[in-house]
Amino acid sequence: MEKLEKLYEGKAKQLFATDDPEVLWVEYKNSATAGDGEKKEDFEGKGRLNNLITTLIFGLLAKRGIPSHLVKRVNDTAQLVKKMDMFPLEIVLRNTAAGHFSSRLGVEEGIDFDEPVLEYFLKNDDLHDPFVNDDDLVVLHVCTREDLAEIAPLAKRINEALIDIFTKIDVKLVDFKIEMGRTSDGTLLLADEITPDSCRLWDQRDKSGKVEHLDKDLFRRDLGDIIPAYEEIERRLAALADAEGVTLD
Amino acid sequence: MEKLEKLYEGKAKQLFATDDPEVLWVEYKNSATAGDGEKKEDFEGKGRLNNLITTLIFGLLAKRGIPSHLVKRVNDTAQLVKKMDMFPLEIVLRNTAAGHFSSRLGVEEGIDFDEPVLEYFLKNDDLHDPFVNDDDLVVLHVCTREDLAEIAPLAKRINEALIDIFTKIDVKLVDFKIEMGRTSDGTLLLADEITPDSCRLWDQRDKSGKVEHLDKDLFRRDLGDIIPAYEEIERRLAALADAEGVTLD
Ligand SMILES: Nc1ncnc2c1ncn2[C@@H]1O[C@H](COP(=O)(O)OP(=O)(O)OP(=O)(O)O)[C@@H](O)[C@H]1O
Ligand SMILES: Nc1ncnc2c1ncn2[C@@H]1O[C@H](COP(=O)(O)OP(=O)(O)OP(=O)(O)O)[C@@H](O)[C@H]1O
Ligand SMILES: [Mg+2]
Ligand SMILES: [Mg+2]
Repeated sequence: MEKLEKLYEGKAKQLFATDDPEVLWVEYKNSATAGDGEKKEDFEGKGRLNNLITTLIFGLLAKRGIPSHLVKRVNDTAQLVKKMDMFPLEIVLRNTAAGHFSSRLGVEEGIDFDEPVLEYFLKNDDLHDPFVNDDDLVVLHVCTREDLAEIAPLAKRINEALIDIFTKIDVKLVDFKIEMGRTSDGTLLLADEITPDSCRLWDQRDKSGKVEHLDKDLFRRDLGDIIPAYEEIERRLAALADAEGVTLD
Repeated sequence: MEKLEKLYEGKAKQLFATDDPEVLWVEYKNSATAGDGEKKEDFEGKGRLNNLITTLIFGLLAKRGIPSHLVKRVNDTAQLVKKMDMFPLEIVLRNTAAGHFSSRLGVEEGIDFDEPVLEYFLKNDDLHDPFVNDDDLVVLHVCTREDLAEIAPLAKRINEALIDIFTKIDVKLVDFKIEMGRTSDGTLLLADEITPDSCRLWDQRDKSGKVEHLDKDLFRRDLGDIIPAYEEIERRLAALADAEGVTLD
């Protein structure tokens, strides 16, 4: 597969065309951003780690009956993925109060919910990714009621599967953000990435009682170096994948 | 019915106990507030007008099969209402883009929606009445999934009935905010007020093409005196009530 012209450059990834019109080439960058793009820094090795982590997670999810856009990893920092018609949505699942939920609603971080919370944020930089509800999305023609009736249960299933995966590596899945789209034949699929950039992951092996972040909050909150944390997630996921017979390529 | 001790003072109303434990005395104040309480002013006659308007609207709604907490108007500025266990929610219905919806989502004011939009805002001054979705409300224990399955259809029915009422008096119902609660026997009821403070009402008799506000936006946006507008709404509603045989007392 050949890497052709660049189609899009985001904060974390670059998308390239390939000689197959149905397939994109995704390059994972080393940059990390936070605070609506206010904060930005490069971390040597981050692109490689996120590419590995996302590939491992998509593999582990596939094993649990949840397909994704992933075709295959092509090198250290790149994947081939199915080209999708994306919903411009950040689909957020929360199992435990943290971050934006906590500040917005005055709930202490770390309080577990009775049931998962699903929230949608419109991907729109000019509007600063506003929080929206189902009715908003429908009248904005971002998606239909029927789309939402597919998206919400798929998001909940992904959450269940990810909880299973992260529990097995002694990590608490506090919350995460995913994106979905439709393939050319209309199939709804998990797309984009699942990495410590897009999840809140709290180490359960640390028994000190204080939260050990294994995710981008280390960068957002200046709590420490992200690379060792991302390496730790990669190492644990690789061991699980190995045990489950899930391969990287 | 006797007016006893004051139980609560809000920005627009005062609540008093009465000799009936199931009944409250509501006094409508002359004050208007806007911008999260930043802007505040008194308007002679506003309390009387809002008391009249809310009474007329609850009467017109009752005629359309939608009961409310209203027991009866007791004087120029006061009503007796059923004491309710209130949901701490601003239940917002939108038929046309305006205000917060427009600024938040970048949609021009005046664009009609394909279908009504229902939004919930948590009544919490400290948190500045945050926008919430169903899942948020459930995990916050503000209401149950079952409550929402009653609240949402009732809100939609109220919208239908209000559109019918306002269309008959040549007013476009752009959006409005209501509150609901449960009576001591658990019945879900429309409560609080429906007034030009809590609705966006655009005059359709004015044929100039420009929006003629008959609501609190006159105050919010410094567009003119609110009292003549509130008087106009009261006059038209009184005429409709008269035609329908709905009385004030
Ligand atoms: N399979 C796919 N087909 C088409 N587009 C995709 C696919 N998977 C992900 N995308 C899109 O690729 C882009 C990835 O870029 P990236 O994540 O760097 O930036 P971004 O999401 O635009 O901004 P941010 O920095 O906030 O994440 C996103 O716009 C995402 O929606
Ligand atoms: N039938 C009822 N039983 C009990 N409380 C009620 C009933 N109807 C309305 N309320 C409550 O009475 C209060 C009315 O006060 P008011 O509207 O002045 O202030 P507020 O809603 O607290 O603040 P704001 O100025 O933002 O409206 C509200 O808290 C409302 O929820
Ligand atoms: Mg992205
Ligand atoms: Mg009020």
